[in-house]
Amino acid sequence: MRGAVLYGPGDVRFEERAAPVIIKPTDAIIRISATCVCGSDLWPYRGLQEIAEPTGSAVRSVRPGQFAIGSFFASDNTCPNCRAGYQSGCQHAEFVGTAQAPVLRVPLADGTLVATPGLPSDDLVPSMLALSDVMGTGWFAADAAHVKPGDTVAVVGDGAVGLLGVLSAKLMGAERIIAMSRHEKRQTIAREFGATDIVTERGDDGATRIREMTDGIGADAVLECVGTQESMMQAIRSIRKGGYVGYVGVPHGVALDGEQLFFAHVHLHGGPAPVRRFLPKLIELVWDRKINPGRVFDLTLPLDQVAEGYRAMDERRAIKALLRP
Amino acid sequence: MRGAVLYGPGDVRFEERAAPVIIKPTDAIIRISATCVCGSDLWPYRGLQEIAEPTGSAVRSVRPGQFAIGSFFASDNTCPNCRAGYQSGCQHAEFVGTAQAPVLRVPLADGTLVATPGLPSDDLVPSMLALSDVMGTGWFAADAAHVKPGDTVAVVGDGAVGLLGVLSAKLMGAERIIAMSRHEKRQTIAREFGATDIVTERGDDGATRIREMTDGIGADAVLECVGTQESMMQAIRSIRKGGYVGYVGVPHGVALDGEQLFFAHVHLHGGPAPVRRFLPKLIELVWDRKINPGRVFDLTLPLDQVAEGYRAMDERRAIKALLRP
Repeated sequence: MRGAVLYGPGDVRFEERAAPVIIKPTDAIIRISATCVCGSDLWPYRGLQEIAEPTGSAVRSVRPGQFAIGSFFASDNTCPNCRAGYQSGCQHAEFVGTAQAPVLRVPLADGTLVATPGLPSDDLVPSMLALSDVMGTGWFAADAAHVKPGDTVAVVGDGAVGLLGVLSAKLMGAERIIAMSRHEKRQTIAREFGATDIVTERGDDGATRIREMTDGIGADAVLECVGTQESMMQAIRSIRKGGYVGYVGVPHGVALDGEQLFFAHVHLHGGPAPVRRFLPKLIELVWDRKINPGRVFDLTLPLDQVAEGYRAMDERRAIKALLRP
Repeated sequence: MRGAVLYGPGDVRFEERAAPVIIKPTDAIIRISATCVCGSDLWPYRGLQEIAEPTGSAVRSVRPGQFAIGSFFASDNTCPNCRAGYQSGCQHAEFVGTAQAPVLRVPLADGTLVATPGLPSDDLVPSMLALSDVMGTGWFAADAAHVKPGDTVAVVGDGAVGLLGVLSAKLMGAERIIAMSRHEKRQTIAREFGATDIVTERGDDGATRIREMTDGIGADAVLECVGTQESMMQAIRSIRKGGYVGYVGVPHGVALDGEQLFFAHVHLHGGPAPVRRFLPKLIELVWDRKINPGRVFDLTLPLDQVAEGYRAMDERRAIKALLRP
């Protein structure tokens, strides 16, 4: 079997690897229908899977032949953290980072995989794939930011997660959705997903613009989908007193000043998205064709051209690359 | 009129000052029934007030002769921030820091003061006084930490606010309340207020102890009532995935690592307590003798001995000093 291997920055190769085998009775081996390239270099890539291979003896909730979706963390879905809705913080969590290959071993298959109601038609596959990571993460950003009907919501970041944060806020009933973006193609998708306003300023200028647009009060909710010091502070400074920042951009070198947070009266919540919590609901929305999160894939490549997918995203020629085995 | 003046560290004097006068039509001049010394050097002191003097022409909700309570921030209680429940972040907030005197000018009296149902009997005065600051703040810590029936709650800090955080968590239905304290007298009050467990370890050792006591999961909610780097990290490390930290200790030199917050999956909320939001409910609880937050005053002095009140608290001979004009 051939699969993608990241040798180092800018060096992704598609080469021969051992095919996965069942290691534990809770494992499942699945065949990949479509996979993709993740927006961050080190934050690995997840897939969407058709269960065509064997399952371990302890796997009960999915059967060979079903089409199923998982996320970037395998979780037992029974421990106290999972029951609290934080499957990405499962006591037995295992990171799943080898999905850019035709076949994948999924640990804790019962807790991790959710089967779709039937085999999805081909045009639904990109949207089902999006659920495994970017849509689940955008949804978590809006959920963590407590978005509710009538809210004014700002979204920092116009990558796939930010754009799907716009879609999530719309689905949760936000009245005004301000997408912060400088890229025309991304602005267009943001508007399709429900953005009512576009702001091109960044950092403190972006926060000032949000305040101007909200009579000096600030947004009810801000979705932080980048993970830099500038984007986090932009989010915190854009919020009204008692407002909510949901942050899902993996922080790189971010330090928050306690006194500043204190006087901002901000609610702060985020982390690696517990995608599993949202999968049943999101699968239903895609299955019923109520949402089209697969819209963020603007480049489709055969799996063996995975390296070109990385390059296109790195150079911002593509928002997100879908890979077909 | 004589009142307290802070000249510098350790130098509080009770000396002649100009009596306050009505400056704006929204002001009220009130006579102080009891006042107190605040636990932090720079975080000033608030009082509880009997309205015996004139009110400005625009004041409608309180009348001369009533007994009323305010907090350390005057607020109009009508702006968007106030309507959202963040009166301490009112667009027209004014800090009220001159209450260690027999008479006080209260700005924005209508929005700031809440009258009690009648003149409270003398034994209720300490508890009414506590509402203006420490009880309102302890309540906000528990509210910000989302305490709900059945929760396991840890409280970091055994000052008046921490102890009243214990009482607040109990009132909100917490099942297990772990007070972190090394002082016998404070432990006793914590138990009276509803603490089920006492932990004497601090910092990382304290957090480890909380994890051990909760099967490795962590507390549902932690109330941070100190404001140091150590106490904030102790709170964050004590929490379960998706748990809540409510922080009300004014942060001094606190810096939070974004990546650590991210992977902790913590909900973080706090700030200067919007005491005004809680006053109507808390006044009712004291009036009906359902709570006795005045228990935290373990030293009563005449107002002109205010300097001794500071010293006693500074040397931890007293939890909190009540001053009678």
